[in-house]
Amino acid sequence: MNRAIGVIDSGVGGLTVVHELMRQLPKEQLIYLGDTARCPYGPRTKEEVKKYTWEMVDFLLTKDIKMLVIACNTATAFTLHDLKEKLNIPVIGVIQPGARAAIKFTRNNQVGIIGTEGTVNSSAYTHALKNIKTDIHVTALACPLFVPMVEKGILSGGQALKVVNESLQPLKYDREMDTLILGCTHYPLLKDTIQEVMGKHVTIISSSEETARETSTILDVHQLLNKEELSPVHQFYTTGDLEIFIEISKSIFKEAHFQMLTIKNANISHNQVS
Amino acid sequence: MNRAIGVIDSGVGGLTVVHELMRQLPKEQLIYLGDTARCPYGPRTKEEVKKYTWEMVDFLLTKDIKMLVIACNTATAFTLHDLKEKLNIPVIGVIQPGARAAIKFTRNNQVGIIGTEGTVNSSAYTHALKNIKTDIHVTALACPLFVPMVEKGILSGGQALKVVNESLQPLKYDREMDTLILGCTHYPLLKDTIQEVMGKHVTIISSSEETARETSTILDVHQLLNKEELSPVHQFYTTGDLEIFIEISKSIFKEAHFQMLTIKNANISHNQVS
Repeated sequence: MNRAIGVIDSGVGGLTVVHELMRQLPKEQLIYLGDTARCPYGPRTKEEVKKYTWEMVDFLLTKDIKMLVIACNTATAFTLHDLKEKLNIPVIGVIQPGARAAIKFTRNNQVGIIGTEGTVNSSAYTHALKNIKTDIHVTALACPLFVPMVEKGILSGGQALKVVNESLQPLKYDREMDTLILGCTHYPLLKDTIQEVMGKHVTIISSSEETARETSTILDVHQLLNKEELSPVHQFYTTGDLEIFIEISKSIFKEAHFQMLTIKNANISHNQVS
Repeated sequence: MNRAIGVIDSGVGGLTVVHELMRQLPKEQLIYLGDTARCPYGPRTKEEVKKYTWEMVDFLLTKDIKMLVIACNTATAFTLHDLKEKLNIPVIGVIQPGARAAIKFTRNNQVGIIGTEGTVNSSAYTHALKNIKTDIHVTALACPLFVPMVEKGILSGGQALKVVNESLQPLKYDREMDTLILGCTHYPLLKDTIQEVMGKHVTIISSSEETARETSTILDVHQLLNKEELSPVHQFYTTGDLEIFIEISKSIFKEAHFQMLTIKNANISHNQVS
């Protein structure tokens, strides 16, 4: 019996993690739940985020998932420890894989991190980096214009380049920094533009790519990899508007990948979704 | 009580994994055992390799290690599955991390692998890659001149460039290949020369770097990371000549790192070491 990997996110950003999971683990079935109705989690209290996250987890546990991926920075920061303690399946968030990849790539311990204001203010990446390597130097920058731009579908071209270039000015003149973590699951969609602005001497770390890579590692260690040759059909759930979710999914996944999805509404809570 | 990570190898090649573990996990204490007296494992039978590996593991288990890293391709190919089944600590080999990194990096599923004749003939990397992603195309090449050259300390310069260039000719004209795995723990010492020969369009994967990265992941998932601020003194054991082992260690580790090692002889077997 092949069980699925569960992926949760506050909305659609986690779809970049799903895209990487499909690429790096093509035999694995995915069940995704995006809490689009209550997105974004960034401005919410810790208690709200924990409550909503647990509601998503409880929904996915009814699907008998074999592993949980928290594809949301805010939910990772507030719930990872608790979920690791209480669930009897492996759990991974999006923060630690990016941090570990940065430690691997940097040659001078000068690491940058960009994310939403919530993520940057939480210092979650700085903590994850210094927890492993105390003498690493971290420069964090919030880029509040990136998520709204991505959600409008502006990923490249003159306008994207202008916004990315202006936002990253404080980092561009840090000539020491050799590694930059994209600390938001929306940002991999801007990776080419960010690389162009930062220059080739900076290694850009996509936390989505790294989270998928580590999901592969963890499934292997726990002997949970799917051995059979399958073309899995993935299940996607949203708490929000189905048509909008389908439109965004189409823009992230290419046609061939999109054919592998079924998308449904999820009713995850006894409480009214606010 | 902080427990150490155990690392085993047939000889000195695994020291490149140790070097990366020290860089990526500087708070962790390492206990290394190199079976230099019986090196190389490549030409030995599967039964011999299993017996010798278990002798090394039994020695490290008396040191109460919290995780085992098999820093030897041959030992990984023959014993990983068995060790994972029988030990109640996490176990990682050097083959799978390199394979997973290649799957992450390749954009066209055209992956090369270079290693000793034993490793290439075992098809262990091809199996690890195709086990996860069936449609990956693998080109494997044995480079029998690399290990003897590294053991003579020839890592760069004209002679190294000549040997690497001639050895890699069959791969150089594969214009499709975008990712090359260094499938031998000696090869990271030649990484710069290999990159120069292959060109910048090829991503070079060091299985030593990737194994250290995944050790970090696995310790985190199992909540085994050392939280305290330490400058650990690492213990190194060899079954062979102590002075030669010390000389080679000095050439791999910089002075500051070398000061963090204690090196001793190991008597690991009731049987006569042959």
